[in-house]
Amino acid sequence: MDRKTDTPVTVIGLGLMGRALAGAFLKAGHPTTVWNRTASKADQLVAEGARLAPTVGDALAAGSLTIICVTDYRAVHELFDASDVELGGTTLVNLTSGDSTQARKAARWAEQRGARYLDGAVMAVPPAIGTAEAVILHSGPQSDFEAHKSTLDALGTVTYLGADHGLASLYDVAGLAMMWSVLNAWLQGTALLGTAGVGAATYAPFAQRIAAGVATWLPGYAEQIDSGSFPAEVSALETDARAMAHLIEESEAVGVNAELPKLIKAMADRAIAAGHGGEQYPVLIEEFGKPRDD
Amino acid sequence: MDRKTDTPVTVIGLGLMGRALAGAFLKAGHPTTVWNRTASKADQLVAEGARLAPTVGDALAAGSLTIICVTDYRAVHELFDASDVELGGTTLVNLTSGDSTQARKAARWAEQRGARYLDGAVMAVPPAIGTAEAVILHSGPQSDFEAHKSTLDALGTVTYLGADHGLASLYDVAGLAMMWSVLNAWLQGTALLGTAGVGAATYAPFAQRIAAGVATWLPGYAEQIDSGSFPAEVSALETDARAMAHLIEESEAVGVNAELPKLIKAMADRAIAAGHGGEQYPVLIEEFGKPRDD
Repeated sequence: MDRKTDTPVTVIGLGLMGRALAGAFLKAGHPTTVWNRTASKADQLVAEGARLAPTVGDALAAGSLTIICVTDYRAVHELFDASDVELGGTTLVNLTSGDSTQARKAARWAEQRGARYLDGAVMAVPPAIGTAEAVILHSGPQSDFEAHKSTLDALGTVTYLGADHGLASLYDVAGLAMMWSVLNAWLQGTALLGTAGVGAATYAPFAQRIAAGVATWLPGYAEQIDSGSFPAEVSALETDARAMAHLIEESEAVGVNAELPKLIKAMADRAIAAGHGGEQYPVLIEEFGKPRDD
Repeated sequence: MDRKTDTPVTVIGLGLMGRALAGAFLKAGHPTTVWNRTASKADQLVAEGARLAPTVGDALAAGSLTIICVTDYRAVHELFDASDVELGGTTLVNLTSGDSTQARKAARWAEQRGARYLDGAVMAVPPAIGTAEAVILHSGPQSDFEAHKSTLDALGTVTYLGADHGLASLYDVAGLAMMWSVLNAWLQGTALLGTAGVGAATYAPFAQRIAAGVATWLPGYAEQIDSGSFPAEVSALETDARAMAHLIEESEAVGVNAELPKLIKAMADRAIAAGHGGEQYPVLIEEFGKPRDD
């Protein structure tokens, strides 16, 4: 396991995120080699001490750890297929955005060419890179992660999820779904309260307390899902559905968008139609777990 | 302001919630009068010391504060219109579920009959009543709330929202929208991760951290809404939209429900089509604030 900050590292792809990643390695003291299709994107990093490699092959040869952060997985494949690069012995950490299928396919492709491969996802905006606030997810062989963890630590809060290369992408989109959902529910409430003249800043702390409070229920609810048993000790789904009707009626009555309330109720109604009205809310996992055929 | 626990209180409507409310008053030492259309629902409370009133009029006359918790607002009106009750000087706290329009209408109706009126909403399940965990929202004249706050305190965490009688209902459904949204986003993520063999209990703490973390952004984002300015300092809506496409693709690829992901993207796409792609997420308030014409 490397623990020294003089471990060389390569960053391929110098968009906003790639430049932030390379900058964080430089700041942590790592000899940093960079490559980008448009070389001028490296100017600032070179001024800060990075070395601009003339080719992808040269960039890869600069050390044993290469971070890839390009537009999409097609760009990843083009990058390496188009060049006479040698991947044997290299560890690739691919932080390019994509889905779990692409990640698993890229892993097989890299491993067939003799590389070690970790897939990753960056849950942060570029300015947060290098701070604890930046959460960076990794999946793939644990030994490959452990071998480079202390170097990757320069990027933020580095997390290992498991051996399945698809996990980083899955956790990433799942986490984003939570982010957008909290924001959308807050916007729905802000719009509702706005019709009564309540400012967004007045409503926000209330929404914040509800979101944080409900979040604490999740581990307990998870046990229901893992055991496949949803006893309605204190509140049944059919009670929720009646309150959902109020949410829709209220949204329509005051003239705000009712699409989110309607989707919420539609999911619950289908679970109730399937006979789960007397069970507790997490029984909805059965609806979320299958595609809607329509 | 009453501060003594010997202040008499009346509870009308003895469903699960009404019984919990009356039980909390009894436990706090208040002489408690109850009434219910089906008198037998009062048996347990009477055994605990409640007095069962023979008529609604008698129940109201037992004290200056009456809590109403019946099926719906129609039941509230039927209750008082059908009887020769005297509302003059009484303070009604109506915790019946309904919408803001019904609350404002009930307030006018009660005030015309000489009653003081507060509308309320219970954000709790019956077993939580009487504990700090039970949040009970009130709206209406502040002086009426203050006059009875120490009695109402027996029910849980009692909150005053403002003079507009519709506020309790609006905050209630807004808070519920947040609750269901956090749960649904968590279920979406649990379903996604489940396809890779990750258990709900493994994923839950991750979802909990994201929800609680995003909740802390709301007060800052609220300032953007109140100022009507959404500068994209670090992340623009169009970047979110690209990641939303990944969420949809991933959900469809692994065979889980994609309705929530599609709604998330549809709202963002409309804001982008309206020219807001370069602004920050809270600009979506413009979409949430208007009904969809289709």
